Amino acid sequence: MPTVQLKYQTFHPSIWPKMIGEVSRDATPGSFVLVLGKEGTPFGWGLWNPKSRMPLRVVSHSLDEIDDETFFENAIRRAAKLRRDMLRLDGETDSYRAIHGDADFMPGIVADKFGDVLSVEITNLAAWQRLPKWLPLLHECFDTKRVVVGVDQDLARVEGIPHRGGVESDNVRSVKIREHGIRYEVDFSAGHKTGFFCDQRDNRRKFGALAAGRTVLDLCCYTGGFGISAALAGAEEVTGVDLDETAIAMAKRNANLNNVKVRHTHADAFTWARTMIENGRTWDLVIADPPKFIHGREDEIGTAKYADLNKLALQLVAPEGLYVTCSCSGMLGAGEFERIVIGAAHRRDKRMQMFDRTGAGPDHPTLSNYPESRYLKVLWSRVI
Amino acid sequence: MPTVQLKYQTFHPSIWPKMIGEVSRDATPGSFVLVLGKEGTPFGWGLWNPKSRMPLRVVSHSLDEIDDETFFENAIRRAAKLRRDMLRLDGETDSYRAIHGDADFMPGIVADKFGDVLSVEITNLAAWQRLPKWLPLLHECFDTKRVVVGVDQDLARVEGIPHRGGVESDNVRSVKIREHGIRYEVDFSAGHKTGFFCDQRDNRRKFGALAAGRTVLDLCCYTGGFGISAALAGAEEVTGVDLDETAIAMAKRNANLNNVKVRHTHADAFTWARTMIENGRTWDLVIADPPKFIHGREDEIGTAKYADLNKLALQLVAPEGLYVTCSCSGMLGAGEFERIVIGAAHRRDKRMQMFDRTGAGPDHPTLSNYPESRYLKVLWSRVI
Repeated sequence: MPTVQLKYQTFHPSIWPKMIGEVSRDATPGSFVLVLGKEGTPFGWGLWNPKSRMPLRVVSHSLDEIDDETFFENAIRRAAKLRRDMLRLDGETDSYRAIHGDADFMPGIVADKFGDVLSVEITNLAAWQRLPKWLPLLHECFDTKRVVVGVDQDLARVEGIPHRGGVESDNVRSVKIREHGIRYEVDFSAGHKTGFFCDQRDNRRKFGALAAGRTVLDLCCYTGGFGISAALAGAEEVTGVDLDETAIAMAKRNANLNNVKVRHTHADAFTWARTMIENGRTWDLVIADPPKFIHGREDEIGTAKYADLNKLALQLVAPEGLYVTCSCSGMLGAGEFERIVIGAAHRRDKRMQMFDRTGAGPDHPTLSNYPESRYLKVLWSRVI
Repeated sequence: MPTVQLKYQTFHPSIWPKMIGEVSRDATPGSFVLVLGKEGTPFGWGLWNPKSRMPLRVVSHSLDEIDDETFFENAIRRAAKLRRDMLRLDGETDSYRAIHGDADFMPGIVADKFGDVLSVEITNLAAWQRLPKWLPLLHECFDTKRVVVGVDQDLARVEGIPHRGGVESDNVRSVKIREHGIRYEVDFSAGHKTGFFCDQRDNRRKFGALAAGRTVLDLCCYTGGFGISAALAGAEEVTGVDLDETAIAMAKRNANLNNVKVRHTHADAFTWARTMIENGRTWDLVIADPPKFIHGREDEIGTAKYADLNKLALQLVAPEGLYVTCSCSGMLGAGEFERIVIGAAHRRDKRMQMFDRTGAGPDHPTLSNYPESRYLKVLWSRVI
C-alpha cells in the first residue's frame, strides 16, 4: 500500500504541499494511500496527486484497513441514503445534489441529479480515474440513466487529467426538472457548473411564501427561480434583473414553462438599482442573490461589492418591506456577511428585524472537520 | 418632554447606568423620554427607569417628534403584521410569539398568543404601566380574549413594579393549542415563562420529518414536543427524558392528547445517558434540547455542561445515525456552540455531516442593532 507522511498533523481533509513529508515510491498520481502521522504511524487514508494544489485529500481518519473500492462504494450509498431515505427529497423534487465532494467523503467530484440525468463536475485526477467504476453505482443509487461530465480545463491541466478517455457525456443538451411543483429547464450547454443551483431550493419556497399580494424584485435573478416562485405564489408583480444574457433568456423560458409573468431585464444590477433609486421606485419584497464576489482571503474588492449591492438593494425596499440577501462566497463567514449587511442598513438609518437565517439545502452538507464547506448564507428581514 | 442625555453614543437599545449623563427633572420612573446625544442634540427616544439595571431602553433613533401612545400602537400593529400578514402563521398554528420585546421595539414585554389567550411576561416598569392601555389593542390585533400576566418577582422589586394594580390575569389555568396539526396543553400555573416554547415550532416539524421508521431519543424533552412530533410522523419507538417532573407529567398528557405512545422518563439526562452508554443502547435519531446552561459572560461551568451533554448524547447515536443539538443560551455564540459540539464529536473520532443550522421561528426576530437577541441555535447532522 502506498504511503504519504504528514509533517504536521491536522484533521482537515485538504493537505497543502508544505505539510507533506515522505512519500513512498509506489504512490502515483491518483493513488489511494495510507496516510502516516509525523511519527510514521498510521493516521488515515487519502487520495494522492503530487501535481495538485492540494496534493493530499484525506477521506478518513480510521486506523482500520480500508479498501479503495469499498470505501467509495460505501460513500456513494451513504450519500444516497441521506438524500433519499433520511431527507426524503424525492417527495419534493426530482433534482438535488447527489454527491457534495469532501462533505460526502468524495473529494474531486460534485454530482447533481436532474431528473434522469446525473450532472457531474470533476475537479481532481483521482475522481476522474474512478468515475467509470463509480458511474453504474451512482446511476443505480440516484435513479439516473444519462450522464453529463464537466471538467474545468484549467484544473485538468494542473491535475494532469488527460484530454481523452474517462466517461463520455451522453448526448443531452437540456432537461426539464420539477422542484416543489415548479418546473425549470436545466441547460448543460451553458457550462455554468452543473447547470442549476439546487442549493437555493428551500429558500425559493420560503421566498414564495412571503410574496402573495406583494410587488417583488429579484436582483441578480440568474435563471429566475426566486421571482418565478414568487409569481406562482401570487405576487402582484415581479421584476427580475441579471447581467448574464444567457441566464435571462433561460429565466424567460422558465417563466413561460410555469405560465407566469415576470418582467425579466438584462442589466447590471448595480447600475440598474441606481437608476431605480433615482426614479424613487420601491418594492414590497426584494431579494439580492449575487454571484460569488469573494475569491480569496482578504478580498477587499469582493467585500466592497457586497456592501455596495446591499446598500443599493436596501434603498429599493418599500417602507417596512421585506428584504432577503444572499452570499455564496465560502471565504466570507456568516458573521462577517451579517456585519456588512447590517452596516449598510444602519448607515442609512434603517433597522433590520431579522426573522430567519438560512443556508444551502440539506443535500449540500458541510463536514465538521471542513468548516469552509459552508458557503451559502441567506438573511431574511423586515426593514424598519 | 423629559430628556435623558448619553455620555457615550451607541445605537444599542440597552443603555447601562455608566453611559447616562444628565437627566431632566421631569423624567420619572417609566417616562417616555427624548434621548440626547453627548453634545446635547436629539438622538432618539426611549423608556426611562433610574432604578433599572438598564435605566434607558432606546426604542427609536428617529429625530422626528414621536408620541408615546402612537409609537407603541404602531409597534403592536407592526408586530401583528409580521406574524399574520407577512409570515401567515395563522395557517400553521394558533399559537405564536406576538411581541418579542426589544426586537419588536417594545422593551419589557414578551407576549405569546395561545389560542384565545395572550400570555404576557412583563420585565420592566414602563411596560407594566402601559399594559392596561396596550391590552385592548393586543387582543384586537392577535384575536385573543383572555390574558395571563406574569411579572418576575425579583425584577418587580428592582424595577419598582407595585404589588397591586395593573392588568389582572383572567381566570385561565391552561389552554389547548394546535401547532402543525399537533395538539399541546399549555399550563399557565406551571410558571415557566409564558408556558410553552413556540420558538421550536419549525424545528419540531423538521425533526418529525426525519423520524419515520426510526428509533428516537428526545433528551431534555420538557413537555414532549420533539418526541411527540416524531411519534406522529411514524417513528418506530420514542423515548423522552427530562429532570423536570411537572414537565414530564405534561409531556405524558400531550402524548395522550395526540394518541401516540412515547416512553417518558423522569431522570437527569446526564446520569441517564451514562447508564444507557454502559448498556450499549443507541437510537437512530437523537435530539438534545437542554435548558439554558450559560447565564453570564465566560460561564465556564455552562460551557462545560454543553460539552458534556453533547459528548454523552453523541454516544447514544446509532452508527451513521442522525443527531440534532440545541442551545438556547443567548450568551453562547453560534460559532462557539458549533465548536463545542464538533469538539465533542472529534474527541470520539466521529465526524458530523451537518446538513442544516436553524434557530428560533420567525415570530422571534432579532434586531440588527441588538445581536444578543439571537439565542436559539440548532445543529442538524448525521454522525459518521
